[in-house]
Amino acid sequence: MNNLDVCLSPALIPLYNVEDYIVVIVDIFRATSSICYGIENGATAIIPVSQVEECAAYAEKGLDYLLAAERDGKVVEGFDFGNSPFSYAKDKVAGKTIVLTTTNGTHALHLSRGAKKIVIGSFLNLTSLCNWLKAQNDNILLVCAGWKNNFNLEDTLFAGAVVNQLQGLNYKPDDAAIAANDLYQIGKHDINGYLKKTSHSERLKKLGIEKDIEFCLHVDLTTAIPVLDGERLVRLI
Amino acid sequence: MNNLDVCLSPALIPLYNVEDYIVVIVDIFRATSSICYGIENGATAIIPVSQVEECAAYAEKGLDYLLAAERDGKVVEGFDFGNSPFSYAKDKVAGKTIVLTTTNGTHALHLSRGAKKIVIGSFLNLTSLCNWLKAQNDNILLVCAGWKNNFNLEDTLFAGAVVNQLQGLNYKPDDAAIAANDLYQIGKHDINGYLKKTSHSERLKKLGIEKDIEFCLHVDLTTAIPVLDGERLVRLI
Repeated sequence: MNNLDVCLSPALIPLYNVEDYIVVIVDIFRATSSICYGIENGATAIIPVSQVEECAAYAEKGLDYLLAAERDGKVVEGFDFGNSPFSYAKDKVAGKTIVLTTTNGTHALHLSRGAKKIVIGSFLNLTSLCNWLKAQNDNILLVCAGWKNNFNLEDTLFAGAVVNQLQGLNYKPDDAAIAANDLYQIGKHDINGYLKKTSHSERLKKLGIEKDIEFCLHVDLTTAIPVLDGERLVRLI
Repeated sequence: MNNLDVCLSPALIPLYNVEDYIVVIVDIFRATSSICYGIENGATAIIPVSQVEECAAYAEKGLDYLLAAERDGKVVEGFDFGNSPFSYAKDKVAGKTIVLTTTNGTHALHLSRGAKKIVIGSFLNLTSLCNWLKAQNDNILLVCAGWKNNFNLEDTLFAGAVVNQLQGLNYKPDDAAIAANDLYQIGKHDINGYLKKTSHSERLKKLGIEKDIEFCLHVDLTTAIPVLDGERLVRLI
């Protein structure tokens, strides 16, 4: 029997022996959704960093990187684009390496180092990811990037969607996985509607990125699974 | 509008400015249930400590304390009783001060110091607690003691029961409060049945304390609200 655990916040990652797990990083609005879309669309690699300054430093390396950085919902001056998944369309990213600023997602990734493998999940690649996970027959830790180190509903709901696809198989869900799946059962018929009552959704609405939100909740739009290879996220399958 | 926040694990307490909140400590199996029952039954005070050794040290103070300590579901030799709520009946605790060993609960209490007030919640005093909270008209942080610093379902469900009683009033629930309430809606008609699928329930069953579990899920058996006064939990109302 494999473990199927959900880590509800990066602050809880130290409670797990990540080396025993395949870790799935989840940051639905919008980092892991954009990463899945970018890798699907032929980006060679995506390098997640936490600070705008780190991102800018890549420009000075003189390589042909695309730089993505956003603050308060706007593209930072001098950068190629922000965190919207729409920036990761094929004509923009195919064959390119992108450096992406994402605070919560990068934090979760760094704390998960040491895992057997780190892959990226979002509603966009849900079923493809689950099929791959099933084939691994290993312990799974779904790490919700959350918001400022705390719980959020959208990442938890996605974790529940994964638990839902894996149930009945050879996995033992922990309490958080049971809760995530139950929440997903409540929200699954109208995820966007369900999330509208949350704080994060309100915050994102103020940023004028409702179209991004809708896009990030598309299920199975893509099949690529991004995997961490050193500092870079590349296509696994 | 007051905040109504649920802290899903003691590890997340540092993310809150506890000084802005009335904190409710929740450790359903079994610390906060036993504390509510003991204070209801006339215990003068209950002193929560984390280590059996700390508990034993109180005996050496020469005072007439009752000492409660358990390891692996059994009363530690030389102690008066364990953590079962049944030990906190009137004939045993009335007029007494009890020193109670509880790892998760004590941890949550210590991290919440600095709060405006710290009170103790359990299904036993649910409605009484909620009525008192309503009368305070203040920010509320429900702190789930959890299990070894991580999320558990029984404490979260209780937090949801509180959110449920306060909804429609002048509170803004955070994502965790929304999730807790939704989980409570799923489980409320058969809380014991709902919790049977969790890891903690299995663990407690192995300890042979199913009667304790059933008792801890009795709603509104008591009305006393324990409050932290220095190191001691005493009756607030």
